[in-house]
Amino acid sequence: MTDAKQLHDRAIVFDGLQTSQWGRPIFEEMRAGGITAVNVSTVLWENFREGIDYVSQWKHFLRDNSDLIRPVRTVADIHAAKAENKTGIILGWQNTSPLEDKLDYVEIFKDLGVGIMQMTYNTQNYSGAGYLEENDSGLTGFGKEVLSEMNRVGVLCDLSHVGDKTSADIIEYSKSPVCISHILPRALKDVKRNKPDELFTACASKGGIIGISLFAPGLADGNDATVESYLDAMSYVIDLVGEDHVGIGTDFSLDRPRPGPWLLWANKDKGTARTLTEFGSVKINKPQGIQRMTEMPNLTARMLARGWSEERVLKLLGKNWLRVLDAAWQPAA
Amino acid sequence: MTDAKQLHDRAIVFDGLQTSQWGRPIFEEMRAGGITAVNVSTVLWENFREGIDYVSQWKHFLRDNSDLIRPVRTVADIHAAKAENKTGIILGWQNTSPLEDKLDYVEIFKDLGVGIMQMTYNTQNYSGAGYLEENDSGLTGFGKEVLSEMNRVGVLCDLSHVGDKTSADIIEYSKSPVCISHILPRALKDVKRNKPDELFTACASKGGIIGISLFAPGLADGNDATVESYLDAMSYVIDLVGEDHVGIGTDFSLDRPRPGPWLLWANKDKGTARTLTEFGSVKINKPQGIQRMTEMPNLTARMLARGWSEERVLKLLGKNWLRVLDAAWQPAA
Repeated sequence: MTDAKQLHDRAIVFDGLQTSQWGRPIFEEMRAGGITAVNVSTVLWENFREGIDYVSQWKHFLRDNSDLIRPVRTVADIHAAKAENKTGIILGWQNTSPLEDKLDYVEIFKDLGVGIMQMTYNTQNYSGAGYLEENDSGLTGFGKEVLSEMNRVGVLCDLSHVGDKTSADIIEYSKSPVCISHILPRALKDVKRNKPDELFTACASKGGIIGISLFAPGLADGNDATVESYLDAMSYVIDLVGEDHVGIGTDFSLDRPRPGPWLLWANKDKGTARTLTEFGSVKINKPQGIQRMTEMPNLTARMLARGWSEERVLKLLGKNWLRVLDAAWQPAA
Repeated sequence: MTDAKQLHDRAIVFDGLQTSQWGRPIFEEMRAGGITAVNVSTVLWENFREGIDYVSQWKHFLRDNSDLIRPVRTVADIHAAKAENKTGIILGWQNTSPLEDKLDYVEIFKDLGVGIMQMTYNTQNYSGAGYLEENDSGLTGFGKEVLSEMNRVGVLCDLSHVGDKTSADIIEYSKSPVCISHILPRALKDVKRNKPDELFTACASKGGIIGISLFAPGLADGNDATVESYLDAMSYVIDLVGEDHVGIGTDFSLDRPRPGPWLLWANKDKGTARTLTEFGSVKINKPQGIQRMTEMPNLTARMLARGWSEERVLKLLGKNWLRVLDAAWQPAA
């Protein structure tokens, strides 16, 4: 029988999205949890200049913590991170707000190392609608051009917080595979933030990946969620789209004060307008047994306990993500 | 006897600075003139956002004219340009104005492909004084930090329009070789824009390069200048610093209307304030026999006619520039 700890140590473990309180303690925890590479996504409402400054901030993090983390621009960099026993950092966005009204800035930010961009965060922007808009515009004319630029220069497009119609349009229109980096199935819990089966199957049919989120309020068990609830959701999506199109997107926002100014800002449209969602009866944010990165090996252990093959577990932990990143980062013809 | 045309065709010809009216006709002329690579410098007074947009504009030029030009980030890219029969484009600045007040933006623009930055253009900025300031501040505290960042990330610092004291400070303070990309000796014509011998010897002693400019008003013969006047100036500097530290910096600003809005803007402090210099009795801008890039082979022919060795001519045409670029583009320890 496969030893879970040994498999976790050997695996490439890819985390499709985190928004933690970045700094050395978090980078140390990435190493302790055996995370090989992570999409570090903090852009939510930032404008162009703030997007640039966020790149600079990460250059400082990378220089000051080069014993723990390294930059990732290619899949080869992720393999290098594994070999060096470091965590690879992919600069990612949860909103295309830093592009403002300039199509050319997709390439500017790609040059600066931004490898993943979610088209829109929660609400309407120039490119499309977020999942909280009452009416979904679909992918706009400008959004089609932004998506074409992402395809051309090699940026992976993320749909997690994007509206259903806009998401469907992006999947149809994109020349490269796309991702839903941190998501749960609406079929198991009917909340707007979760996505319907047809978006999962469409994403997979175009070669994309669905990163299963640890967000407890989106799991059937809510405040009682455990690692098993999480794996139930993962299992549901695997049964729907096959084991080659599913991965992990923890959505860890570790060490962010709750409540605190960052979360309050994040929960307002554009950071400054109306408050978007009520936190309601949420008591736990992540399932029991997987509340921090240090508990990541539990995931591997519980996957094996379900009788999942070593090959399937390796795909879910990271191999599938690497295939999609490699495809999306190749400039389209 | 060496055939001049054959040598010119075989040589790597590097132009240390141009500010021409960029577009396909100029790119075609680069090929016709046998220019292997060129520092395309248009930033004069631009701010951060305009500096970003200038990068984007060049990305369009490079894509739309990829049969004629290619981007250069390394010396290997210049050799590739030679092999491909294209002209390599180094994005350069004549002012650090796009950095505004952000030290981190040196690395941002290096990432975007800016390989050469002149510390200041004509007047005072945050980093130091231009040659037209009455009082030269020398390299400022911020300027020292900017220079250290250039050294760290691998940007070649240019001193052509920089004040004498600030230039001397930069040469002393820099860990990497610097360039004076387009300049003439004050010893042969005593005008402020020219530089004194001691800056040439200091630059060379730190491994740098002096690019001899075609700017006729800076040559002893002024309106009567010919290719021979130009080579007299080059010869003077070679005798002063040795043939390993001299190159070409044409300062071609071809097809810019004279007078015209661009030149009028360029000649105002920060593009908007007082007019800086009178054009006076300037009738010709470049010497007879070398007024356009198509006449570049004349330079090679007249060098050989002076009895200069093939090896010396190859150094002056490009080899010296490549050595300095290679050194400056290596990140300093």
